[in-house]
Parts: sequence; structure tokens; C-alpha cells
Amino acid sequence: MKRNCSPAYSITIRLSIDETITTLAELIMAINQTGGEIHTISTSGRTPEKQIRQITIKAADNDHQKAIIAAAANVKGVKLLSVCEDTFACHEGGKIGIDLKYPLQDADDLSRLYTPGVARICKVIEADPLRSFRFTMRCNTVAIVTDGSAILGLGNLGAAAALPVMEGKAMLFKRFAGIDAIPICLAENSTDAIVAFVKAVAPTFGGINLEDISAPRCFEIEQRLRDELDIPVFHDDQHGTAIVVLAALTNALKVVGKDIDKIKIVFSGVGAAGTACTELLLSAGAKNIIGCDRAGALYLGREEHMNPAKQRYAQMTNPERLKGTLSEVIADADVFIGLSGPGILTIDDVRKMADNPIVFAMSNPDPEISPEIARPEVAVMATGRSDYPNQINNVLAFPGVFRGALDGRATKITEAMKIAAAKAIASCVPEDQLCADYIIPSALDEQVAHRVAQAVRSTAEEEGITRPPSSPVEGVDDLLPTPKEHDE
Amino acid sequence: MKRNCSPAYSITIRLSIDETITTLAELIMAINQTGGEIHTISTSGRTPEKQIRQITIKAADNDHQKAIIAAAANVKGVKLLSVCEDTFACHEGGKIGIDLKYPLQDADDLSRLYTPGVARICKVIEADPLRSFRFTMRCNTVAIVTDGSAILGLGNLGAAAALPVMEGKAMLFKRFAGIDAIPICLAENSTDAIVAFVKAVAPTFGGINLEDISAPRCFEIEQRLRDELDIPVFHDDQHGTAIVVLAALTNALKVVGKDIDKIKIVFSGVGAAGTACTELLLSAGAKNIIGCDRAGALYLGREEHMNPAKQRYAQMTNPERLKGTLSEVIADADVFIGLSGPGILTIDDVRKMADNPIVFAMSNPDPEISPEIARPEVAVMATGRSDYPNQINNVLAFPGVFRGALDGRATKITEAMKIAAAKAIASCVPEDQLCADYIIPSALDEQVAHRVAQAVRSTAEEEGITRPPSSPVEGVDDLLPTPKEHDE
Repeated sequence: MKRNCSPAYSITIRLSIDETITTLAELIMAINQTGGEIHTISTSGRTPEKQIRQITIKAADNDHQKAIIAAAANVKGVKLLSVCEDTFACHEGGKIGIDLKYPLQDADDLSRLYTPGVARICKVIEADPLRSFRFTMRCNTVAIVTDGSAILGLGNLGAAAALPVMEGKAMLFKRFAGIDAIPICLAENSTDAIVAFVKAVAPTFGGINLEDISAPRCFEIEQRLRDELDIPVFHDDQHGTAIVVLAALTNALKVVGKDIDKIKIVFSGVGAAGTACTELLLSAGAKNIIGCDRAGALYLGREEHMNPAKQRYAQMTNPERLKGTLSEVIADADVFIGLSGPGILTIDDVRKMADNPIVFAMSNPDPEISPEIARPEVAVMATGRSDYPNQINNVLAFPGVFRGALDGRATKITEAMKIAAAKAIASCVPEDQLCADYIIPSALDEQVAHRVAQAVRSTAEEEGITRPPSSPVEGVDDLLPTPKEHDE
Repeated sequence: MKRNCSPAYSITIRLSIDETITTLAELIMAINQTGGEIHTISTSGRTPEKQIRQITIKAADNDHQKAIIAAAANVKGVKLLSVCEDTFACHEGGKIGIDLKYPLQDADDLSRLYTPGVARICKVIEADPLRSFRFTMRCNTVAIVTDGSAILGLGNLGAAAALPVMEGKAMLFKRFAGIDAIPICLAENSTDAIVAFVKAVAPTFGGINLEDISAPRCFEIEQRLRDELDIPVFHDDQHGTAIVVLAALTNALKVVGKDIDKIKIVFSGVGAAGTACTELLLSAGAKNIIGCDRAGALYLGREEHMNPAKQRYAQMTNPERLKGTLSEVIADADVFIGLSGPGILTIDDVRKMADNPIVFAMSNPDPEISPEIARPEVAVMATGRSDYPNQINNVLAFPGVFRGALDGRATKITEAMKIAAAKAIASCVPEDQLCADYIIPSALDEQVAHRVAQAVRSTAEEEGITRPPSSPVEGVDDLLPTPKEHDE
């Protein structure tokens, strides 16, 4: 029986197998018959007759896990010792902690790292607060701020339930860019309160990553914070997505041999991510973008189902003021970009598109059109999922963007920095390997964050938005009397 | 020349010594002549004639550092290669970072630790937010919240300059109690704003350590947060100090053979720490405490230089309504506790005290009376300094207090828990070693936090203020079909 197994539903079972009665092969067969996908098998002990085995099995869902466990336990000669639900087990106790850069072993360490020595550092920072970017954690630390109002595709789950996602994000920041990111989940939903909160806490951090805050509040929150703070503020759901979409589109257009300024792009979904993607594609040279919501194409003059954000969207897009449903305006489009919901795009819609259509169906977990259905009709297909080619994953953008901004002491993240980031991501696919199934690097590609960081940093420097260095510290930076004597 | 050298002013110099011209002994002699205290000497390379040495030297201040460097560089045959100001060097780039509990190596890890697996955790926490104490970092995480208004003895330095102290505190939390503590420095001083801020961020944390917030705002901020939050809120400057003072006093009274309910205690300083110490000593059985500010003894009915906090203080202390200056009311006192400023207590004051007087002079760095002057006249002396016996150091209290509260899932920290913590600290000095110069364990004593945690936890359980466990997770906690089969 073939099941759609996932590592998100894996279990690890420990069992004792009486080898006089049964064999490992019989046990595996029993697990296979339930559709369980065996991932690893290890041995953790044995006697002449019995072997202790630990088996990790991917399952499709919770009932499937139970069926696998029951099947394994039912094999004659097998005794189930323990079961571990792997996803829950690795969340038990949290996923991140604090790491000390110095061991703090003796009284001298205490005197330097804490009182009385630390007072010397406080005083020089008070005299020039820019020195906090040199002598405190803030030089490498980003706050991941959420109110839990738009968690993954799950909606408003509240602050406590948002924390596992923010911890996971902090892991990605550290893993891919060496950045120390700290989750801050707020039991507070008002725009004013969130803005006041982030402004108050800003001296602790070198940057602010806004996360999973629902539209339209996220627009105003980000805009006000960008205006009022002198550290980078970046709503990842908007701009992270936009950067990776632009990177993927850049390479997809190379595959089909089209230019961004000559194509027709139709968006399904004009929320936070859809709007940011549209803006970045326009900045990158796109001329003809039509956005659709549930009521169809947005155009200047539309009156029903409008709000200020959609008004603004209509103003900057749809130059021909096309009207109608998604199925109508999709005709002759070169690119479809879905950031909406499952099944929005039909195969008939795809057939109406221009030659060599590009489809990015990023609704998660179920895309706007399933790749199995769409692929025979499209030139390039991308989704948000890791189990198909061309995954549009924000992790390609945000670690490198913040790394570059922190390294360059940037005070903000500009449109040009985002475009530079997109180009850097696109460049990670070697020209000679670029093809319909490989337009975007893997989410685990180690080089991406590094290249993005370099591009973002040098663009920040070109734009002149880097922070001045803090002033030298008297009695510290001038201790070496004769620098010319350095000989190695 | 003897100088008062400190590890807070240590430097590490690297030099090349031409051994055909000079010797290490000559170099050391030159450093010694400046009064520099050589701490370590190591070798990092050599040729037949030259040796590369790295020497760490404690100095008295910045000018002294420069004199040492100049003296070393002036020795014939010595070439100075580099100088490191150790205290500043170990602050460069910050002192703490984020640590990942799992390596996040492949796509399966991503699926479990981030999307899509993490959504499963979010959903079960949304259904029962208490589960955030099981499946997120909050189970082991404390926020260190400050507004930078009362940093060490330096006053209001602001949020950015406060951060090095909070990072140091986070190091102590981790080092002594394994707690992940996160600095939160606020550019916001109003009581309402700080209360609103901490309430908003509370779902991210398992406890709140308020730090270096000036009086009288700290009283109201703590009280409101204690009333409105269901996680422990603890202003360390108040209660940490109070716990360690009670611990020290408990043992000091054993040394002199007096009982807490029969002694006269005079406080100098009735700010945040002085008030909290007074309250805790009263809770622990003290009957006769007289507090003094600059205007002299506080008593019920005093009219000049009063405020609501002092009014409350006068109500609960000074049963005989003594009036007068510190020098007057100190007569016949058994205990002096100073949390005020340098030189407040004279040797004549000490001579007026009862037999076997106990003096805790905790003003930092300069005590209310210098130990050199006081010690001939007192039975037991303690200070806040590490270079005299009996250091009253908060690090003896806060790590264990929070460890016990987190382990016991306590919703607050009560008076009884604080008294239990003090007893636990006092108990770390073995009865047979207890003496005038050893009433309190060393700040680096590994056993203290552990003992404090156990005492705090069991007291919380006795008081019935522990949080109920979160509900079992269906499909996770019931996966093992037949628990009776466990055989190891």
C-alpha cells in the first residue's frame, strides 16, 4: 500500500526482536504492508537470541502512525519497547537556547564579563550609543517579532502558539547565516501597540524581522517602523517571498527566452506577499502585472471589494485596466503567480496562457494547481513545496539579507538591496545546469546566504545607507603605541 | 611599586624577545617595576634567537596599562607585537548568542523543526496554551528586562548602554542554572509602557527578571506585573539582594550567637534593595528594624523628605519610633546594613553598636565603611566586593530561584520561596567551617544554585502555586499501545 509519507509524521520505535522466532525482514515487511516508509534502522544492543532495534519510519498522518505501531507490535517475537513521535520529541523543551561565548570559569572572568569590568563598557556606550553595535550582542542579533495573527496557513493562533515557528525561524537564521535571532511573540494585536513595542525594544537588536503578522496591519506596522527606526526592518512574509519569486522568475524567463519588461504577469492573491512580489517585480522592470482577488482583476476604478491597499495596488498595475475573472484575464499571460489558495487555477486556464507559460503555484500545502496536472502544459513550474522541483522558499532570502545588512551596518533594506538579493539567489544556479526543473537553488544550498549577503552588503554601501563606525575608544583603540612595529 | 590591580583592567601583550640581548626575567622585572601584576605567561613560537611571548598583566587603571605597555616596549631586545585590552576584547561582538538544540542538517530536519511539521505543534498549543511550557523554549527561558535607568551604580545610562550588563547577567543564568535568559533593553521609561510591554511579551517567556529599574517605579512595575501575569516576576535588585542578605545574616547571627527576633537592625538606604531586604528580614522574624535615609531615621509621623514608599517603610519598621541621625540611632544596634553610599558609617558609629556588632557595608565599589577600618571593631563584616571575605553577591540567589520556579512550574515567587532560598544559601557554608570570615558561600560555588532551586521548588509545591501540567497530546502521548510491556 503506497501512502504519502512525510518526515513531519515520522516515528521512531524501539523493539526487541526474538531472532529464534522472527527476523528483521519479517518485521520490515509488516511495516511496509501498512505503507510506512522505513527511513533508518539501527541496533542498540543484542543477546544471542534477541536484538534491540531502533527503526525510524515516515508516516502519512497520526492514524497511519498508529497502524504502523500496531503492525510492528503484532509481529510474533517482537516486543515494542518505546515509541517516539519525532516531530513532537524534537520540540519538547524548545529548539533554541543561549550560548555563552566565554566559559566564565573563575573570579577574573566574572570581573571582566560582569562587574566591575562591564561598567567600563557601559560607560563608553553611553558616551556613543553606536558603540553598542561593536561591544554588545546587537551587532549579530535580530528580533523575530510576531503577534501570531497569520501563522503559516493557519490564521490567528495567538502568541504562545506562534513560538514554535519563530524558534524554527531562529534556527534557520543561525544555520544559514550565523545570525542570533530571538523570537518575540506578542500578546498584542493593535498596530500602535506593536509599533510602540518594537521601537522600545530596538536598542537590543541590530535588525527586526517581522513575521506572520496579518494584512493589512503588517503594511502600516512595517512602514512606520522603517520610518522611525535606524535599524533594518523587514517583513519576511512580504519581502522574503518577493525576493525568491523574483529570483525564480529571472531564471524561468531565461529558460523560456523572454524579457521581464515584455511579459504579462497575472497574480492570484494580493495580500501581503502578493503585493510585495508585485512591487518588487515592477522595480525589477515588469510593466504589465494584473492582480486578482476573489472578485477578479483589480483595476483602477473598480468599486466593489476594495480597500486602501487594493486601491494602491490597482494604481500601480493593470495598465490596460483589464476586467473580469482570473480565468478571463489569464488569457495570453506569460506568467501566473499564485499566492492564494488551492485549486484556484484550472488546466483550462493554463491552456489559455501564452506559449511556454510559467506557473508559480505557491499556496501551501496545496498549490493553486497541482504540478501533476499542470506540468504537461507549462514550460516552467514552481511551488512552495519541497517534494517538487523549484521550491520557492523564503529561507533562500532572509538569512543572507540580514547577514548582508548587519555586516554592512545598513540602517534599512532598500528595493535595490532586495533586487540584488534576488539576482544573487538566481546566480546560484549555474548557467550550464539551468533548466525547467532547476531554476532556483535548494533551500539547503550553503552558498546562497553567503552570496546574498555579499550582494546586499555591497548594494547598501553603494546606496550610502550604511551606519558610520562608532568612535574609537580612548585607552582601548590607542593602546598599541607604535603600530608600525607590527611585523606579522 | 604596589598598585591596586584588577582583572577588570587586564591587558594581554604579545612580544618578541631577542634572547641574545635580553631575558624574560628582565622583561618581567620591568613590568613589576610599574606595579603591574603578571597573571599568565605563555609561548606562541620561537626561533633560535627569538621567543614570542604572550603575557597577561592586571593593571590598576587605563594610565597604568599604558605605563606597563611602555615599560615592556622599552626593554632592549623586546619588540611589542600587539596589545589586547582584555575586558573590551571579550565584549567585542557581544557575549552571548543563540544555540541550536538540533543540527538541522537535511530536508527531513527542516520538515520536522520548521514547516510543515511545526504546524502540528502550533495547533496543539493553540488548543491548550499551557503546552507552550512543554513544547517551546519558554519552559527554560527568562527575559531580563531593563530600561537602563539604574545601571550598576552608574545611574540612568539608557537602553543601549545597559545591554552589556544584561548579557553578563544572561551568562550567569546559563552558567549557574542552565537557564536561557534573554536581555530586553527598553528605550522607554514610563511605568505604564514597561508594564504593557512586559505583559505583551510574556507568552514568549517562562519568567521575568526585572533588572536595574530605578525606584520608585520598580515597585509599581513589579507589583502590577505580579498581579497581572501568571509567570514569576522578580526584581533582582530588590529580592536577589534581600535573599543573600538574609542568608548572610542568618549565618552571622549564628557566629555571634544572637536571635533574629531579639536584635536591633539599622539600615542605611531605603531604596529598592533596602526596602526589599527590610521586608524579607521582617518576614523571617526580625522585629526591630530602623531605616535611615539622608534625613535620618524613618519613623511613623515623620513629615520631611517623605514619599509613599517611605511612608509604608515607616509603618512597618521602627516600633519605638526612634528619631535622629544614623549616628544617633545606631547606638546599641546589633546589625548595620548599608545599601547606600561610601563612607556613610564612621568608626565611632561602629563603637556605639552593641557587643559583637555585625556590619554589612554593601555600597559598591566603595563600602559604607572600609573593612580595614571597621574590622578591628566588628564581629562579622560583609561587603559587596569580591576582594574581601563575605561577598554579598546576587548571583548566589537569582539563578537558583528561577531554576526552582521554572522546574516547579511556579506562577510566582513568594515570600516563603525567598526565605527558603536564603536558608539554602546559608546551608552551603558547612557548620564546622562557619566563622566570621566565612558566613556566605563563594559566588562561584557550584552547589548553591542547585540547593536554592530545590528549596524554591519544594516550597512552591507546598504553597500550591505550581502550574497544572498541560493536557496530554492525543496521538503523541498515547502512541505506545501497551505501556505494561516496557521492560527496561
